[in-house]
Amino acid sequence: MSFETIRWQGGCPGSVRILDQTLLPLETRYIELSSVDEMFEAISRLAVRGAPAIGVAAAYGVLLGVQHGAGESALAVFRRADSAAATLIQARPTAINLSWSLQRMVARAAKQHTASASGASIVEALFEEAHAIFEEDRAICRRIGEVGATLIGHGQSLLTHCNAGGLASSDFGTALAPIFLAKDQGKQLHVFVDETRPLLQGARLTTWELMQAGIAATLITDSMAGRVMYEGRVDAVFVGADRIARNGDVCNKIGTYSVAVLAREHGIPFYVCAPLSSFDAEVESGAEIPIEQRDPLEITEGFGPRTAPPGVAVYNPAFDVTPARLVSAIVTEIGLIERPDTESVVAALRRGGCSV
Amino acid sequence: MSFETIRWQGGCPGSVRILDQTLLPLETRYIELSSVDEMFEAISRLAVRGAPAIGVAAAYGVLLGVQHGAGESALAVFRRADSAAATLIQARPTAINLSWSLQRMVARAAKQHTASASGASIVEALFEEAHAIFEEDRAICRRIGEVGATLIGHGQSLLTHCNAGGLASSDFGTALAPIFLAKDQGKQLHVFVDETRPLLQGARLTTWELMQAGIAATLITDSMAGRVMYEGRVDAVFVGADRIARNGDVCNKIGTYSVAVLAREHGIPFYVCAPLSSFDAEVESGAEIPIEQRDPLEITEGFGPRTAPPGVAVYNPAFDVTPARLVSAIVTEIGLIERPDTESVVAALRRGGCSV
Repeated sequence: MSFETIRWQGGCPGSVRILDQTLLPLETRYIELSSVDEMFEAISRLAVRGAPAIGVAAAYGVLLGVQHGAGESALAVFRRADSAAATLIQARPTAINLSWSLQRMVARAAKQHTASASGASIVEALFEEAHAIFEEDRAICRRIGEVGATLIGHGQSLLTHCNAGGLASSDFGTALAPIFLAKDQGKQLHVFVDETRPLLQGARLTTWELMQAGIAATLITDSMAGRVMYEGRVDAVFVGADRIARNGDVCNKIGTYSVAVLAREHGIPFYVCAPLSSFDAEVESGAEIPIEQRDPLEITEGFGPRTAPPGVAVYNPAFDVTPARLVSAIVTEIGLIERPDTESVVAALRRGGCSV
Repeated sequence: MSFETIRWQGGCPGSVRILDQTLLPLETRYIELSSVDEMFEAISRLAVRGAPAIGVAAAYGVLLGVQHGAGESALAVFRRADSAAATLIQARPTAINLSWSLQRMVARAAKQHTASASGASIVEALFEEAHAIFEEDRAICRRIGEVGATLIGHGQSLLTHCNAGGLASSDFGTALAPIFLAKDQGKQLHVFVDETRPLLQGARLTTWELMQAGIAATLITDSMAGRVMYEGRVDAVFVGADRIARNGDVCNKIGTYSVAVLAREHGIPFYVCAPLSSFDAEVESGAEIPIEQRDPLEITEGFGPRTAPPGVAVYNPAFDVTPARLVSAIVTEIGLIERPDTESVVAALRRGGCSV
């Protein structure tokens, strides 16, 4: 990729450099984060976003919280980690990767602490763990790309919603990974990009990523997805996921559900690309996933000028749930889960070494 | 209504006063139009918009073109009318009311001319005709409201897309007319309003109209319509139409088709409200209706600041086609056309005295 969404700078102590996605596509500005509070703020205001990237950011956030404690007691360092996690978990409620990553970091700290390690060794272990999460995310994105690219034919026209690309991860992304890989394999492609109101991740981020990679992209409003399908111009849909329930229901950016219904209406395959870390085996179905409600101003003043009457009521859920029955396959790092349901999801999670 | 979308000012010669809808909801500014070119520009830039209102505006536009010709020959006045119509027909390609209204004005001029009337009497006839179109539109909107209000129950929550209200007509509107009438009948209502990208007619105009009328409205992005239906919060959908084909296919604002597919998926009735003048018996199906393509900047810089990468490809159709099979009923001034198809549409048009 021609950009780096997130990376650790220096040793320990060090800092986190992120590409501030709120400024794209007009400005490519990197910012440096040195504290848990700065990371919390960056995640909350979507400067770093996308389920896999949030997981990496959270891990690095915990590291920022403990890195100056190497001279303290093991208990003090553990408390630093636990406190950082308690702060960071509040940043966004829906993406499971946030809690998955924080739990993994806290568990590593607890394990070291229980083993009577020193404060310094806990810091060292958390440094390792955070970097492992980052490296694993890179490898997983590549693998999702390889698995998903087999679903894409030469000359096809695809459609995607929101941004589940390199900007949403530490590398190739999830939904866009198969597209980048297919391009690398020499397949000629075209992608319709839903602008994705209210925050325009499609217009601002996905078109930018695809153009950087030399892939033909056409921007449409979310309301045009049905029209381009009706015109017979979409061969397959690829989207990411913020959390997937045990039964295969997919929680993703608001509007994904509409795209899935439209894809089914037109007989177009609907693929969800996500790492196993995006599955939440604790929730039976999508109905149990908390849906983040965001500020009404994102809709009424999202572009600067006010575009709705003062005092108007607004409903602004950031995500919706696509029932598993509308999903043709989930593309994971260990292969496809076709026609997902509880049985096939649990089997895949077991195969991937997850405890279910 | 607490505002006037369009009205003729003075006698003949006179001028047309319109509410400049591009400034709503922040500013309620009326502008005066005195020439065909000014009317052409007002229609093109959507200062006046909505199929019925465009019909009235076009008729008044022809009147602006002939009103200073009362001292000229009958042929000269006829040519003025014909030339005004030739200009105005170019303003927007999709709404059939534009050509319907222009044809009616030119036919009236031709009839007078054939009857060897004077130039002054042709001007007078066109003054009558334009005002008749305006008055008929008011009566038709009321009647659509009465017919449609029977479909709305007390306590219901509705959903609408774009603006087919008073701002889209000379009075009550089409899709909103049943809602206004139901409110007047004492029914308690709530309306979800799709913001309607790219030009935000829902956010800017429909919420404003509903709030003025004291009807509870909740603004959502277009991508949230599926979610609120999934949550069981929509009892019926009401939309307008820019043109309806002989087989009942409905051409309306981009995004209407998606709403129709989603409504069908959730078993929610989908009602289209339109006067008989919005039917085009000359086109067999929606596939034959020309779809206006608008400026990419509406999507990439629609709110002032640029929100997409420079050079990105954009597809910006202003309308889409909803197949008749997804329409529960068309609400017209002569009653409901339930489960519309060629047979029922032609029968209704004949009943309404239209030549088919």
